[in-house]
This record gives sequence, C-alpha cells and structure tokens, in this order.
Amino acid sequence: MIITATEADGSQICSIAARAGVFSHEEVECVAELWEEYLTQGPKICGYNFIVYRDGDHVLGFACYGPRDLTEGVFDLYWIAVDPIARCNGVGRKLLTASEEAARQADGRILIAETSGTPLYESTRKFYWSMGYENEATIKDFYAIGDDLMIFVKRM
Amino acid sequence: MIITATEADGSQICSIAARAGVFSHEEVECVAELWEEYLTQGPKICGYNFIVYRDGDHVLGFACYGPRDLTEGVFDLYWIAVDPIARCNGVGRKLLTASEEAARQADGRILIAETSGTPLYESTRKFYWSMGYENEATIKDFYAIGDDLMIFVKRM
Repeated sequence: MIITATEADGSQICSIAARAGVFSHEEVECVAELWEEYLTQGPKICGYNFIVYRDGDHVLGFACYGPRDLTEGVFDLYWIAVDPIARCNGVGRKLLTASEEAARQADGRILIAETSGTPLYESTRKFYWSMGYENEATIKDFYAIGDDLMIFVKRM
Repeated sequence: MIITATEADGSQICSIAARAGVFSHEEVECVAELWEEYLTQGPKICGYNFIVYRDGDHVLGFACYGPRDLTEGVFDLYWIAVDPIARCNGVGRKLLTASEEAARQADGRILIAETSGTPLYESTRKFYWSMGYENEATIKDFYAIGDDLMIFVKRM
C-alpha cells in the first residue's frame, strides 16, 4: 500500500535510491538531504513530500514531490524510484498516480518530471509517456555535454 | 561599478526589487529570503551570489545567480533588476555581462534565465534576446493560467 513516509522508512528510501542504478552519488546524496529536511522541518515548511509503497515492513519504492515556488498549481516530481527486486509490478505507476492525486488535491494543475535524455533513462522516459506525460521542453547538453534535460509535463 | 554585494546593500536591493514594477509580493519576499541566506551562509554554501551596480553609496541594480545542483556547468540567473530611476543606462547589461563572466570563470557553460510570457515582461524578454539568449523552451500556463514559463538560455 502507498502511505506517507515515516522516520523508519529513511534507510530503505536511501538504499533504493542507491540501488536504483540510474542515480549518481550526488543524486543519492540529494535524496538523503531532502529526506532530512522532510523529517526535521516537515513537508509544509520544506516543500518536500515523501510517500512510500510498503509491503509489510518492506519499502518497495518511494516518490518525492512538492509545490513549485512562485507558481499557482505547479508541482515537481523530484524523485521516484522502485527497488530493482520489485520492478514490473506496477509499484512505480501506483507511486506516480498517488503523487498526481496528492498534487490534484492541493489544487495542482501541472506535474513536472525532469529527466535525462541519455540511453540510461530510456525506460524512465517510456514510463512517463505511458503515464500520459508529454515532453514539452528539452534543453540540450544540460546535465553535461551529451546529456539533455527533458521536461515531462502532465496537465491535470 | 559592479561589485560583490555586502551587508549594507541589502535594504537597497530589496527596495529595487519592490519598485521594479514586475515582481509580485511573493517574488520580492523571495529575493529577501535568498539575500538572507547569502548573508548568513555565504554564497558557497547557499549557492546564491549577489552582485550590485553601485554609484557611490547608491545601488542602481543587482543580480543574483548561482550554479544549478546536479549539473556540470549550468548557472541560473535567479534575479536581475534595475532601479526605475536608472533605466536605459546600460546598468542591466553590465550586471548580466558580469554574471555571465562570473559563471564562465566557475566553468559555467550555460546560463539560464527563466521569465514570464506575459506582456508585463516583454521588455525583459527583449533584453535577453538582445544579450544573445535564445528562448529554448516554453511551458504553457506555468506561473498561472495564461502566464507561460519562458526559459532563455545563453551558451558560453
């Protein structure tokens, strides 16, 4: 089931980020930093909401989303990741759907997912397309030379 | 002349943001928040660099820029504003050129300026175009319905 993440989920969230196979060391550290802000400040102040897909004590995936400052109704999907051992079971789809639903309930009009244009992220891009997202903008050589930023948008 | 902003410049920076005529109350508050982080944490930790165009004791304009996390060489121009009484004297151009130069010296490849597509920002968009920026991406209805995000990019 999908629920709001609590303190005990932290180590499994960071472990999934590290084992996901697509995030750099800096990106895994960034997940840990946002998690720390979520725990210490709470989502209303820090702007980061964490949800997990939990099966008993096992966290099988997580998502982190939050409202974009200075906009009316834009939400960012900062992170979404599924444990490699739990792939292809709809965990990612359920996490993304739950993030969209939470954004919608907070008057969200637009959910934005930024990802990379490299082959490593091909399945991620296919995932967003299959969930009704459109690649509305691309900035070439953004993350690094040869590594484009692709902005996926879902209008709700 | 253009120099790194120091504590005494804070009130004039916030005043210029408030009197610029294009920023909402929330945006002016955001400038003040970034300024506070710049003062208390320093630019290396918070990631926000403030520079000012100063004529004697008078600050005539300011810019705030910094590196984008998780990229190699992308810098964001968070804010740039000129005192209405000092417009059309090249203050904005000098501030933007100095921001680009600072980014370049820190191995910046790309400077990104996000702005709005509304008529209120037409002179801002013309300013970026005249400075060699390209509108590489647009997200419709981003800031609000009818208020698009326009991403201007300069590749250095």
